[in-house]
Amino acid sequence: MEEIGSTVWVVADGYIPPGSSGDDPALASHESVCILNTGPADAAVELWVYFTDRDPDGPHVLPVPARRAFHQQLGALGVPAGVDYSVVLHSDVPVVVQHTRLDSRQAANALMSTIAYPAR
Amino acid sequence: MEEIGSTVWVVADGYIPPGSSGDDPALASHESVCILNTGPADAAVELWVYFTDRDPDGPHVLPVPARRAFHQQLGALGVPAGVDYSVVLHSDVPVVVQHTRLDSRQAANALMSTIAYPAR
Amino acid sequence: MEEIGSTVWVVADGYIPPGSSGDDPALASHESVCILNTGPADAAVELWVYFTDRDPDGPHVLPVPARRAFHQQLGALGVPAGVDYSVVLHSDVPVVVQHTRLDSRQAANALMSTIAYPAR
Amino acid sequence: MEEIGSTVWVVADGYIPPGSSGDDPALASHESVCILNTGPADAAVELWVYFTDRDPDGPHVLPVPARRAFHQQLGALGVPAGVDYSVVLHSDVPVVVQHTRLDSRQAANALMSTIAYPAR
Repeated sequence: MEEIGSTVWVVADGYIPPGSSGDDPALASHESVCILNTGPADAAVELWVYFTDRDPDGPHVLPVPARRAFHQQLGALGVPAGVDYSVVLHSDVPVVVQHTRLDSRQAANALMSTIAYPAR
Repeated sequence: MEEIGSTVWVVADGYIPPGSSGDDPALASHESVCILNTGPADAAVELWVYFTDRDPDGPHVLPVPARRAFHQQLGALGVPAGVDYSVVLHSDVPVVVQHTRLDSRQAANALMSTIAYPAR
Repeated sequence: MEEIGSTVWVVADGYIPPGSSGDDPALASHESVCILNTGPADAAVELWVYFTDRDPDGPHVLPVPARRAFHQQLGALGVPAGVDYSVVLHSDVPVVVQHTRLDSRQAANALMSTIAYPAR
Repeated sequence: MEEIGSTVWVVADGYIPPGSSGDDPALASHESVCILNTGPADAAVELWVYFTDRDPDGPHVLPVPARRAFHQQLGALGVPAGVDYSVVLHSDVPVVVQHTRLDSRQAANALMSTIAYPAR
């Protein structure tokens, strides 16, 4: 399978909801970037976190194997809950990126998702 | 009506929620790819499923008639619930693809949707 | 203000949820296409509805005044609830289109939205 | 870090839900535009609000510092709740824009989000 996608991706609305309902870990509030590498070579994806009040944090290097999907929770990279942020990803090979938030602060969860912005 | 769209589409964030609330089949957790073929010729759409830990599965061939909408649930193609995946679709004629998730694990359902990424 | 946007737009995932909770009309399940015309000339937008099992229905002509937003519920155009469909919009001047679903079949509502696919 | 993005962005579906459940300010119904400026120069972003029945309102000038995320609630700019509107943003340097709605009119909140439409 050939490579598909772009090498720079942006998510502008990052916000990990501070708090969750219930005790099911799968339903805890979180945000993820979902990366697909369809190509024959492994990808090294450098992820930068931008904040409203301080310099960007990164790069966090995500290894995305050839011909694999890769879902990364932002909280696991140290992004704090309850603060506004944005994400930029740079890959050395074309990939596709989608961003999703699960918000379970109230009794029933809410979801939002969008294909990220392909800048290159 | 003329053809509209692209011939390669990507959904990066695939995840069929494992479990549902209530017993209404229409409200069971699921994911769908919605395909529109506006052109005068039937489309053969080849769908590949990418996983995090094994080789892609496919192609699943979806026949999308000329001048018709076509909604395909991923679970009906054998995609298991509770695992991260991505989807790539190749069509022999231009089409448009949108991806939607209904998550009813909690007492009220949640929805997310995005136009897929047009790669060609 | 100058014109902004494209002249052909596609929404692939149309589905008006059949049923609602509560009796607040503003919270009834529905779908809308939201159109923005930033230009100096009124727009005539022709909307076609594509189905899975019959020929497209249209055109429904939507008059979108110059420098105005225009939100159109699909049900008000006669699109039935509970069936899969897609939408194509053709405008004589550039506009921008976004699609949104409110699903209130369960006790709390769910929302999804995406910028439509700009085909021209 | 270099500049990333476009200089004109559009959100077609604006609507601040009139009313909220509960008394947590973080869960009040609202809409936000989230702007990322990755470049080395501060951005001046001019935001215009388009309505269905009157002339556009603006520009509201949003200062987005270099290498910073910036999240702006629309209600804080005077956009009234319960009316349909659209938003156009013009930036003097490339930025990326995403739009998000939190609707908490019912007992559990609902979310929707999309990368805005990049017009230039």
